[in-house]
Amino acid sequence: MKSFSIQDINAIINGEIVGESTNAITGLEQIEKANPHQATFIGSRKFENLWKDSNASLAIINDNIDLEPGENKAFIKVKNADLAMAKLLEAFAPEAPHFEVAIHPSATVDASATLGEGTKVGAGAYIGKNVVLGAHVTVYPNVTILDDTTIGDHTVIWSGTVIRERSEIGHYCIFHNNVSIGADGFGYRPSDDGRSLVKIPHIGNVVIGNAVEIGANSCVDRGKFSSTIIGDGCKIDNLVQIAHNCVLGRSCIMAGSSGLAGSVTLGDGVIIGGSASIKDHTTIHSAATVGAGSGVMNDVPAGKTVLGYPAVDSREMLKQWVALRKLAR
Amino acid sequence: MKSFSIQDINAIINGEIVGESTNAITGLEQIEKANPHQATFIGSRKFENLWKDSNASLAIINDNIDLEPGENKAFIKVKNADLAMAKLLEAFAPEAPHFEVAIHPSATVDASATLGEGTKVGAGAYIGKNVVLGAHVTVYPNVTILDDTTIGDHTVIWSGTVIRERSEIGHYCIFHNNVSIGADGFGYRPSDDGRSLVKIPHIGNVVIGNAVEIGANSCVDRGKFSSTIIGDGCKIDNLVQIAHNCVLGRSCIMAGSSGLAGSVTLGDGVIIGGSASIKDHTTIHSAATVGAGSGVMNDVPAGKTVLGYPAVDSREMLKQWVALRKLAR
Amino acid sequence: MKSFSIQDINAIINGEIVGESTNAITGLEQIEKANPHQATFIGSRKFENLWKDSNASLAIINDNIDLEPGENKAFIKVKNADLAMAKLLEAFAPEAPHFEVAIHPSATVDASATLGEGTKVGAGAYIGKNVVLGAHVTVYPNVTILDDTTIGDHTVIWSGTVIRERSEIGHYCIFHNNVSIGADGFGYRPSDDGRSLVKIPHIGNVVIGNAVEIGANSCVDRGKFSSTIIGDGCKIDNLVQIAHNCVLGRSCIMAGSSGLAGSVTLGDGVIIGGSASIKDHTTIHSAATVGAGSGVMNDVPAGKTVLGYPAVDSREMLKQWVALRKLAR
Repeated sequence: MKSFSIQDINAIINGEIVGESTNAITGLEQIEKANPHQATFIGSRKFENLWKDSNASLAIINDNIDLEPGENKAFIKVKNADLAMAKLLEAFAPEAPHFEVAIHPSATVDASATLGEGTKVGAGAYIGKNVVLGAHVTVYPNVTILDDTTIGDHTVIWSGTVIRERSEIGHYCIFHNNVSIGADGFGYRPSDDGRSLVKIPHIGNVVIGNAVEIGANSCVDRGKFSSTIIGDGCKIDNLVQIAHNCVLGRSCIMAGSSGLAGSVTLGDGVIIGGSASIKDHTTIHSAATVGAGSGVMNDVPAGKTVLGYPAVDSREMLKQWVALRKLAR
Repeated sequence: MKSFSIQDINAIINGEIVGESTNAITGLEQIEKANPHQATFIGSRKFENLWKDSNASLAIINDNIDLEPGENKAFIKVKNADLAMAKLLEAFAPEAPHFEVAIHPSATVDASATLGEGTKVGAGAYIGKNVVLGAHVTVYPNVTILDDTTIGDHTVIWSGTVIRERSEIGHYCIFHNNVSIGADGFGYRPSDDGRSLVKIPHIGNVVIGNAVEIGANSCVDRGKFSSTIIGDGCKIDNLVQIAHNCVLGRSCIMAGSSGLAGSVTLGDGVIIGGSASIKDHTTIHSAATVGAGSGVMNDVPAGKTVLGYPAVDSREMLKQWVALRKLAR
Repeated sequence: MKSFSIQDINAIINGEIVGESTNAITGLEQIEKANPHQATFIGSRKFENLWKDSNASLAIINDNIDLEPGENKAFIKVKNADLAMAKLLEAFAPEAPHFEVAIHPSATVDASATLGEGTKVGAGAYIGKNVVLGAHVTVYPNVTILDDTTIGDHTVIWSGTVIRERSEIGHYCIFHNNVSIGADGFGYRPSDDGRSLVKIPHIGNVVIGNAVEIGANSCVDRGKFSSTIIGDGCKIDNLVQIAHNCVLGRSCIMAGSSGLAGSVTLGDGVIIGGSASIKDHTTIHSAATVGAGSGVMNDVPAGKTVLGYPAVDSREMLKQWVALRKLAR
């Protein structure tokens, strides 16, 4: 177990210590549950009463909050307690599972694949023909990476994930359990006689930038022609569907169980709420937000927030909800 | 194929035999499809006409239904035909796939892992460092269980499931295919310069009680600090998302494709309908019900039923729906 | 890289060449992105201006569009550019990943399983007892197929997919990554004392016809008794839930993230939009359409289109949406 003094902790987050406690800090916890060896976080005044009753001996607190630590307790005052929390979580993080050998004997790595320095391949993983893994890539057990895929340095691929052939993946990505990358897009045409459906082959691929995170059991389908593209820094939650030929800009966020139909375009910094879904061939422009549970059927201008099903400007949707409630009375 | 006499069947469900049939019963089937060697179930009067035309020679019937079996046919009258059905399904269930050896030679079990008596590990499965599997645990092929996880007795883990490090799982659980347990929660903060997103490490874990069932391709993320907790007896369907730091009480039900955002609390016996989603930091109190397809944005009091998007009291939502239909005419 | 002359291409799609270009065609691309060695497609007049600026030297164009190719450029006029596109995508498709040996040495194939001519089993795959794989079946790495399952000729099963025991699967099916077939249905009854939930065993199976495609991370649960049935030619997208005892007719389409609760019946040619969900025991009759995002709570007559939550006739729902917008002003 890791253990830090309050001074050690302040060396990480560069704040100002107020009050005094000699307790070693061995973990982080929310304010109601913390014990005397855990630090907690105070990001707003509403935590004031909880602090009085908390057993924590240390709180990281926003410096614009006027509060005293109390006896035998300490604060570290910082500009942004949330960012400090992220740094401390990193400091306290236990080491991820690791492997002593580069390639586990039960893994299958094709002779034509190339692996960079420090790259590890876990038990039962499959690395296909001409796959190129950069340096310090971690492939956890039972991952499948098919032919001609390239993966950048420091990318981490958790167990059960499947990456289909010809995918191009950047540096410092994280793919969680059971992700699917590069499955065929969903497209059919009625046959000439109208009696059945003709599969449209999807001969494109998936191109994923740097520092992209994709949640467990999420799917990114390959393009029909050319590529489905996910820009640098995008963060995708669990059980998200990204269909063929979608193009996501930089640093987009898609929360859990949301989905994009085919050929949707997201600008930069778009936020898609949980369980929201977007119609095919729609464009959500940069810095727009789609509220949770929304169903978007039209383009969304830059910076705008839409909400509801069908989604409209969020203030208008709130008015609709109020009006309907009144009407029902 | 298993074969039972009507007397054998009554020994299992402890009812009262009415009428007579000497047919051996080799299976169970719904009333319209049953053949003379299958038993069927009559739980309400509306099945009366179907029974006349049914080829089944035996029906299990609620004892408050006034009906005669007819010539060469038999009833077994019971208090609750649904519970009797559950017992008979168990009696007729074919044996699950099983393995002759404890650890399949193609599985990888770390030398530091411990396995209880009667525990089986299938082909291609991976059991990491310091993992503790109780007695009579079944790990089907191609499961991945990472370091320091503990799993209780008689738990069954179907193929493709991935359990991340430090998970704690109880007795008699069932995890279906391709479940993800313990992936990182979804949390980011804007960087100091506001130009990118900083990942918030999730250093907690997942704690799952006894007799919990989790459906295929569902996800339970690990906590940011401390744990995401699923109480004893919870039943989770397929493609369900349970985000970081959710806490579920005892015997909650979540139907298919539903989802909880981060830090949602469910009391005991909460029922979440299919495709419903719950906003982060919301509490659904004990014995409350969320209707299918709902989007819940506020706490729900104990015992209440909410419905719709945004969800309100279900009677109020039904009124809103009626009012809107009238308005449109 | 494959390379075709314009004459080669016309031999595939049987159209009429207009204009002239000697460029070799090595790929297909959408009109704005195409280079001089790529062919593109013009399915409606709205592409007219884009064609003027396109670098493509060949377009496949619907023969009812009155447009000239221009200098050093060619058209191939066809009745249906979309069908021609499907044929050309097939012609240009790179070969799928393939394996030199029938059974990879790291795969586990039970001695009692039988494999047809030309069938391949990839690394780390598991084929259980009495499994019957037809001819020319492709099982990609890390697939799991449990006991007594039968799979028809030419079916392709991508990595991570799990098929539970006693499934029956037809010819020419495609199952994408991480599909779950045959997990237990979701059914419980309150125990006699009302204090917990009794699992209802699901002793049926899954029966899937010919030419069925199932998307990545989708689930089809086994029946309680008898079977969950998916008819010939059904096309299922990613992250779709099909619960126990559903029965789908021929050539149904279910788009991404949609779901059917238990015992839903779809006729032939039913279309379910993305993220739509259907209540248990509902019937959607043949050729009906459910709009994206809808929540269906009642049977839908043949040929009808329903929309919204709760879903009603689509024209009525559009009126409701208009009425609510007006009301809010």
